[in-house]
Amino acid sequence: MKIDGRHFRTIWTNDAGQVEIIDQRWLPHELRIKPLPDRAAFATAIRDMWVRGAPLIGATAAWGVAVQMEHDPSDASLTETWQVLHETRPTAINLKWALDEMERLLRPLPPAERAAAARKRAAEICDEDVEANRQLGAHGLAVIREIAARKQGRVNILTHCNAGWLATVDWGTATSPIYQAAEEGIDVHVFVDETRPRNQGAQLTAWELASHGIPHALVVDNAGGHLMQHGEVDMVIVGTDRTTANGDVCNKIGTYLKALAAHDNGVPFYVALPSPTIDWTLRDGLKEIPIEERTAREVTHVQGRAPEGHITEVQISPDATGARNPAFDVTPARLVTGLITERGICAASPEGLAALFPERARG
Amino acid sequence: MKIDGRHFRTIWTNDAGQVEIIDQRWLPHELRIKPLPDRAAFATAIRDMWVRGAPLIGATAAWGVAVQMEHDPSDASLTETWQVLHETRPTAINLKWALDEMERLLRPLPPAERAAAARKRAAEICDEDVEANRQLGAHGLAVIREIAARKQGRVNILTHCNAGWLATVDWGTATSPIYQAAEEGIDVHVFVDETRPRNQGAQLTAWELASHGIPHALVVDNAGGHLMQHGEVDMVIVGTDRTTANGDVCNKIGTYLKALAAHDNGVPFYVALPSPTIDWTLRDGLKEIPIEERTAREVTHVQGRAPEGHITEVQISPDATGARNPAFDVTPARLVTGLITERGICAASPEGLAALFPERARG
Repeated sequence: MKIDGRHFRTIWTNDAGQVEIIDQRWLPHELRIKPLPDRAAFATAIRDMWVRGAPLIGATAAWGVAVQMEHDPSDASLTETWQVLHETRPTAINLKWALDEMERLLRPLPPAERAAAARKRAAEICDEDVEANRQLGAHGLAVIREIAARKQGRVNILTHCNAGWLATVDWGTATSPIYQAAEEGIDVHVFVDETRPRNQGAQLTAWELASHGIPHALVVDNAGGHLMQHGEVDMVIVGTDRTTANGDVCNKIGTYLKALAAHDNGVPFYVALPSPTIDWTLRDGLKEIPIEERTAREVTHVQGRAPEGHITEVQISPDATGARNPAFDVTPARLVTGLITERGICAASPEGLAALFPERARG
Repeated sequence: MKIDGRHFRTIWTNDAGQVEIIDQRWLPHELRIKPLPDRAAFATAIRDMWVRGAPLIGATAAWGVAVQMEHDPSDASLTETWQVLHETRPTAINLKWALDEMERLLRPLPPAERAAAARKRAAEICDEDVEANRQLGAHGLAVIREIAARKQGRVNILTHCNAGWLATVDWGTATSPIYQAAEEGIDVHVFVDETRPRNQGAQLTAWELASHGIPHALVVDNAGGHLMQHGEVDMVIVGTDRTTANGDVCNKIGTYLKALAAHDNGVPFYVALPSPTIDWTLRDGLKEIPIEERTAREVTHVQGRAPEGHITEVQISPDATGARNPAFDVTPARLVTGLITERGICAASPEGLAALFPERARG
């Protein structure tokens, strides 16, 4: 999407053919662009979260393989690259998928052909991500269009965390319908949940929307229920890290509370998801999805820009106070109005998902 | 309650008869005790939020009148003091109540008798607050005792914001049952909601509990729903700024979301309130209670202790991003398990409240 009028992806090749990324650790305070010249740089960028978001991690890993093939296209190098990049974020599903995809393509080729093939496939993986998110967004756009027509006025959308273009190669998932609605001239306004503890809403989603020129307002995670009670939210769109075959949605902690409020106030609650995030093996999100507990420091400390201009963190709680920090929660399918996928929108139910993805659903 | 083993109230007279308070602006990082030698000091302490919480503001104002009467007990001084102190926080109900109470008592007295009478009444107002909260806590304790007996193990209580002793003269409202349960030897553990945007949970409630020695864990406001889904919360207790005659509860923003989650998971949701916070003129909290919108800066900036040790604030969002900041929300009576008052516990309904307060309820 755009940054001050100029179009960007999160990862691209420059005029010299070198891969560049946005180093997201400094957002929203500084836009830093970094070249990734070799495998070590790719490993650092993924491990230290210069890039984040499942689709973007996968795309970055694919490019990491391609760059390494230019340095050393040997079998040993291919094997080692899979290992080195995989261990940077071992639980990221898309990372493994992208590495396996590159391995499957390159292993049978003569080493001399690997660099060119890898470069071509890495670029395709990026383009495929962009296209899936564009399609998904077009389906979500239909919902926004309908609300705009019915309401004859500004459409207010609430979102949680960052399921934006910064988490993908472009468009984002939850944000894709929003960007497309704005492009079509629909008057959209976004309430951006801060998303404690890591503040991805305040730091990334707000920055995306501000940079692209989408009207928005930051709100604390506590505020959404009140806004819905007073008719200030027309729909909720969030992303997901993992969706079960019955439509339960695992997403950033706090999503469940917004779904409850939407349900209590008759506000449509949509989840945007590229189909690879559906886990067809699971039937009960609450019982079957293990929830990662992260470090207490994310809760007790907050990062931001100090009055002097540097990025720092402040401690908000007493030294003697510990914290619990579950990173995700599960929103039961009964609270979800619809799942927005690249193939269309379906009910959050086994039947709904099976109808869109008959080849994946089990009998 | 206790700070490192020593008992404190939030306002007291020292051995020289001078009024002292805890300057709460520096909590949880520093415990600063300040004498309030004259009316100007009292006005500053209330206006600049050295003290906060409706009951404590009222008690502080009463002491402010008493101290001024020692300097100048004239009619003009009494009139001026009411005005000077009232305009420090003009919307605080308890402030006006305490000032009217002092005025009513002192105006008929000869000036020479006013200082002693004022000092006596200010001390009584403090003691009455302590006693009301103690009684309220004893009723709430019965609920905790019952859960402890049924569960045969640790009782996990979630609270939002600070309805603790720092907001009152002692005991607090939502915390009073918790302190009394701990005193009785019940194994209680408190999940403390951070309570963005002002972080009263992280800064004040966590500090209170840590200082008194109550086991607790800080959680982000997003986490409570997940904890309830997994059976980690046995009850919720919150305070309230204003309760309608039908039991709708206006409290810090985000309370409604916790009430929804408690309802969805069968977790009892209690509200602790001294009866003066009941507004007998209101019947529909959502429609009738105006919700204050506060400055965007509370959302875009977070205060805490810098790595270098000083208190500062950091900006968490882009310069171009604005914020909405509703300070309270309304939890409908249907989501409230019970109202804990100094006279006992009642249903959040017109009938429930009327049964406990027949002299106040309208026919």
